[in-house]
Amino acid sequence: MTATRFFSDNAATVHPVVMDALVAANRVDTAYDGDAISQSLDAAFSDLFETSCEVVWIATGTAANSIILAHFVRPWQGILCYEEAHIEVDECGAPSFYSGGAKLMTLPGSGAKIDAGALRARIAGIRQDVHQVQPAAISITNATEYGLAWRPQEVGAISEIARSSGMKLHMDGARFANAVAHLGCAPADVTWRAGVDALSFGFTKNGAMMAEAIVFFGGSGGAGVRELKKRGGHLLSKGRFVAAQIRAMLADDLWLTNARAANAGAAALAAACHSRLMYPVEANELFIRLTAEESAKLRAAGFDFYDWGEGAARLVVSWDQDAQAVAPLAAAISAL
Amino acid sequence: MTATRFFSDNAATVHPVVMDALVAANRVDTAYDGDAISQSLDAAFSDLFETSCEVVWIATGTAANSIILAHFVRPWQGILCYEEAHIEVDECGAPSFYSGGAKLMTLPGSGAKIDAGALRARIAGIRQDVHQVQPAAISITNATEYGLAWRPQEVGAISEIARSSGMKLHMDGARFANAVAHLGCAPADVTWRAGVDALSFGFTKNGAMMAEAIVFFGGSGGAGVRELKKRGGHLLSKGRFVAAQIRAMLADDLWLTNARAANAGAAALAAACHSRLMYPVEANELFIRLTAEESAKLRAAGFDFYDWGEGAARLVVSWDQDAQAVAPLAAAISAL
Amino acid sequence: MTATRFFSDNAATVHPVVMDALVAANRVDTAYDGDAISQSLDAAFSDLFETSCEVVWIATGTAANSIILAHFVRPWQGILCYEEAHIEVDECGAPSFYSGGAKLMTLPGSGAKIDAGALRARIAGIRQDVHQVQPAAISITNATEYGLAWRPQEVGAISEIARSSGMKLHMDGARFANAVAHLGCAPADVTWRAGVDALSFGFTKNGAMMAEAIVFFGGSGGAGVRELKKRGGHLLSKGRFVAAQIRAMLADDLWLTNARAANAGAAALAAACHSRLMYPVEANELFIRLTAEESAKLRAAGFDFYDWGEGAARLVVSWDQDAQAVAPLAAAISAL
Amino acid sequence: MTATRFFSDNAATVHPVVMDALVAANRVDTAYDGDAISQSLDAAFSDLFETSCEVVWIATGTAANSIILAHFVRPWQGILCYEEAHIEVDECGAPSFYSGGAKLMTLPGSGAKIDAGALRARIAGIRQDVHQVQPAAISITNATEYGLAWRPQEVGAISEIARSSGMKLHMDGARFANAVAHLGCAPADVTWRAGVDALSFGFTKNGAMMAEAIVFFGGSGGAGVRELKKRGGHLLSKGRFVAAQIRAMLADDLWLTNARAANAGAAALAAACHSRLMYPVEANELFIRLTAEESAKLRAAGFDFYDWGEGAARLVVSWDQDAQAVAPLAAAISAL
Repeated sequence: MTATRFFSDNAATVHPVVMDALVAANRVDTAYDGDAISQSLDAAFSDLFETSCEVVWIATGTAANSIILAHFVRPWQGILCYEEAHIEVDECGAPSFYSGGAKLMTLPGSGAKIDAGALRARIAGIRQDVHQVQPAAISITNATEYGLAWRPQEVGAISEIARSSGMKLHMDGARFANAVAHLGCAPADVTWRAGVDALSFGFTKNGAMMAEAIVFFGGSGGAGVRELKKRGGHLLSKGRFVAAQIRAMLADDLWLTNARAANAGAAALAAACHSRLMYPVEANELFIRLTAEESAKLRAAGFDFYDWGEGAARLVVSWDQDAQAVAPLAAAISAL
Repeated sequence: MTATRFFSDNAATVHPVVMDALVAANRVDTAYDGDAISQSLDAAFSDLFETSCEVVWIATGTAANSIILAHFVRPWQGILCYEEAHIEVDECGAPSFYSGGAKLMTLPGSGAKIDAGALRARIAGIRQDVHQVQPAAISITNATEYGLAWRPQEVGAISEIARSSGMKLHMDGARFANAVAHLGCAPADVTWRAGVDALSFGFTKNGAMMAEAIVFFGGSGGAGVRELKKRGGHLLSKGRFVAAQIRAMLADDLWLTNARAANAGAAALAAACHSRLMYPVEANELFIRLTAEESAKLRAAGFDFYDWGEGAARLVVSWDQDAQAVAPLAAAISAL
Repeated sequence: MTATRFFSDNAATVHPVVMDALVAANRVDTAYDGDAISQSLDAAFSDLFETSCEVVWIATGTAANSIILAHFVRPWQGILCYEEAHIEVDECGAPSFYSGGAKLMTLPGSGAKIDAGALRARIAGIRQDVHQVQPAAISITNATEYGLAWRPQEVGAISEIARSSGMKLHMDGARFANAVAHLGCAPADVTWRAGVDALSFGFTKNGAMMAEAIVFFGGSGGAGVRELKKRGGHLLSKGRFVAAQIRAMLADDLWLTNARAANAGAAALAAACHSRLMYPVEANELFIRLTAEESAKLRAAGFDFYDWGEGAARLVVSWDQDAQAVAPLAAAISAL
Repeated sequence: MTATRFFSDNAATVHPVVMDALVAANRVDTAYDGDAISQSLDAAFSDLFETSCEVVWIATGTAANSIILAHFVRPWQGILCYEEAHIEVDECGAPSFYSGGAKLMTLPGSGAKIDAGALRARIAGIRQDVHQVQPAAISITNATEYGLAWRPQEVGAISEIARSSGMKLHMDGARFANAVAHLGCAPADVTWRAGVDALSFGFTKNGAMMAEAIVFFGGSGGAGVRELKKRGGHLLSKGRFVAAQIRAMLADDLWLTNARAANAGAAALAAACHSRLMYPVEANELFIRLTAEESAKLRAAGFDFYDWGEGAARLVVSWDQDAQAVAPLAAAISAL
């Protein structure tokens, strides 16, 4: 299946090391998040990010994003984001549900990056009264919904606006590993050092089974976060099995190894369809121009992927698909 | 640890067969609940319950209860339940969160069973106007919070009231397996045949890792259920790993085997502390009179359990603790 | 109608002085709460309460209570109150709606006053974890739902508990005027000086048309209150007409004059049915033992009132019913 | 003030006939909406609209819009509307609050009218899965936020799309009277006959004090509406005073008379600044090009109005401002 599955990395297999970690966690029997593995997350991420972190494991990225945003805004406030952000178009309104009705306030962008100038203008256009929803947080996705990696200085430009307006900055990192693998920077550089207050650090797409980390930097977490998680039905009684996945992903930088593999696969694929690329390929997603006829041909050959509007398609390479695994698709595209 | 862990079955180990099922599910790579395992749940439960079922896997019992209740009531309505029901005292208000603010309307009970007469009186006392919250669902727990099994005819008495008042009947079955193991009846007998509209069928406490089934009978599910799940952040991208746990628990009646083991362990323990029992032991929980001094002695000997108010304690036996595993505790209690 | 209407003071007429104030307010044309009358409320109440107040006009008591409570608690927290409190049984779940699902946690009481000892025990019984809802506010009603006035020292006993547990204390003062008229104390004595953080000060039942004041003491208001009001659809564009009612009620202590009249009427009525009284009559409500036959006789004679369960009735005297107005009912009861 | 107040009709005076109605309503003393005036609304609007209507009075347009929309959509669904619709930009998120988090899904438009083609394309672009919010209602404003009147056939084009997609159609009629006055059609023609399911019929801006009618056509109201109103704190105990305002506005077509006066004033003003108009003037609002310098001059002369972005201004004429009242402003603009 690794030779034909390009519709999403969220269906990829679980890395053997993670499976082993689950077996190991079965020797522990402490409930909820009272176990040693769960309790070790703060320290593990603090090491990784070179600063004190407050970390909460959670089973899905939708829950991670929603809990962070609900923690940052009150029900009558707003969240500024890109108009095609995952939180806006693919979470069935979860951020609004968790926050008690906060409004997503969308902005256009290029390659799914909101523009600092447009953001500033949007904020300036909001009347400071009770009639208009006042934004209290900004959310960006790294890697973006179009597979681009936010640079530290780009994040900094957004966080500067957030700071000056008294807003929090959230980073949806469903593919954070792929972004960091591309940037080659320290995880800290593109997060808290660039002004990010909280990160949804995704592991599920990158080799875990169901494991994401909510990471708060600079004391931005605190009272209420665990209540939101419990209240959402996300406090697993055998929570050690989620914590264990995360620890396994962090050990020996497995998260980075996996992301590099996926990125390499994507790069190999990109080389085969360079003239079709709609965006530079920086992470593990390709958006390519593809006619309906061409799509049909690829599908007939067994390849599975999503159409992306008319005349375009999205190809996602997963951690378990290296350059060799993508070769058949690369050849098929070249042959079109 | 199986010799000393009596604080909760929700910390028990995962059954090896379930672990194997996870490994097997790693060979599939379909996203969300589009995989064959997830898709097979309706049929599997329809077989087990001898009627057409609509089934949704979910990671926690809190989410299962909340989604069912949110599906049955509107935000301005109420849910009648026992005053110490799990949904009332142990879910951080999750049913209210999912339902948009529906009110839990509590009733006293004996052994955590609400009384049909008291229920009828309570309903009769509610004015039929917009000032008072009108209940639209009743929730009972089987086995109850005090370890008793609702008999089919007892459930029938409650469901008759529900029907005549236009309410839905929900059964929180976090320990449904233990109740059925005790009753020796068909699962259908104590659920839909007795008038239950939906069941939270728990597997996590009984040998799974994180897997519960939301089971709708008689067409009580339908539009909105999957949206509630997604919106709550409970649609796992690799959902096959939850579905696989449930299928493993259903295969060869593992759920029943495990529950019988836990019940047997509890019965063995009960024999050792008969004079201390506050409730008959029908499932896998014991509530016993125990002085602070006695508690301290047992804890000093390494046993782990919860105090239950003053002068009482709760002992929970898990699927991985048979009569032999409980022998040390039984002896220690006898020796007090 | 003043001779026969005893079912509620919330249906009473509007005082002529309030009607005149509406006519006068029609000469102003500033929108929302930007007008001078609205802007004068902080100062007017600060004078009355001898301390700095933050005041927000609102059209109903349900909205006043809900906005204060939603301001004091987060969605996952709770509100401790008497089990028959208006917020619990007569507001269709509005506090839960405004707060995003906060739980009302009820306590028994005598004459609708919760007992400090029982309150302390209840709080002590709540486990400090994320599973149980943690209360963040206490709400009491003055005069109570059974027509009793909380004494300053009684309020103080409750507020001491609130303070020591980090909770806010709310007073539902739908009949605050009647309580103060009975106590003969300064409004401050039974509110902030006794530890109350916010008061729903009712005027509608006491001669206004639709006007209640949300009064925050000691800086307990602030950011978010006005958003809750606007978001609830309670910011009237011609808000001056609500503010004007309140100013009219405060001028020359009309609120106290009206409350004294109602209380005097109630006292006169109480004298006629002394042996029937279920509670001392301190404000403007009487709860009396009355057989179904007796109720029928009074109704046949034209008197309108509510049954209060079996064998009991509630009689409410309004500001526009003095001792003379209640004489016919007093005579009818005496003659039973 | 009628000579200088052009910032909004929501600050206008109350018509004397409405004031008289309030005085008359003070002779009634029935609580909530049990009085004869409240009870007469269904019939009165059924007459006006030539069809059976279910009507609920409410104090604000924000509450009217929110209750209708919350009745039409579930929390996980969406509401399609113009990107600058009042419900989107001026209600502090109230529709989301009342609906439990439903998403406003915005569309561009011309003169604040959404385009049928763009609407169709938008709906077609939504994937039919649980990840994307599915819209369940469309909301349009008549007269629009830019002072244009929707024609019956334009409404029909939108309602046809709503029907074919199983959505409800809501009309925000804060200035419905002004639209009807301009169109010269029957109220039915531009509402239910054109496919509108529910109307927020505004009276406050048009001569009432605080009175709007929620009008359901074709049985689109029903269970839940009154609970939403009570739960929002909008059921006034002396509700007759709101119902009375509405009856006064309906009597002798006062609503139409007032709207015609305001429209006439606006037309007179439009004649004076024809070359500056950004939109045709169909109702009582003008949007004109005005430099900062010109604005300053008008303000220095005492005129009060809102800037509308850079180089533009909004002028609103109220029912109490006839052609004569607007003459000074007309002259001042001409003299610029």
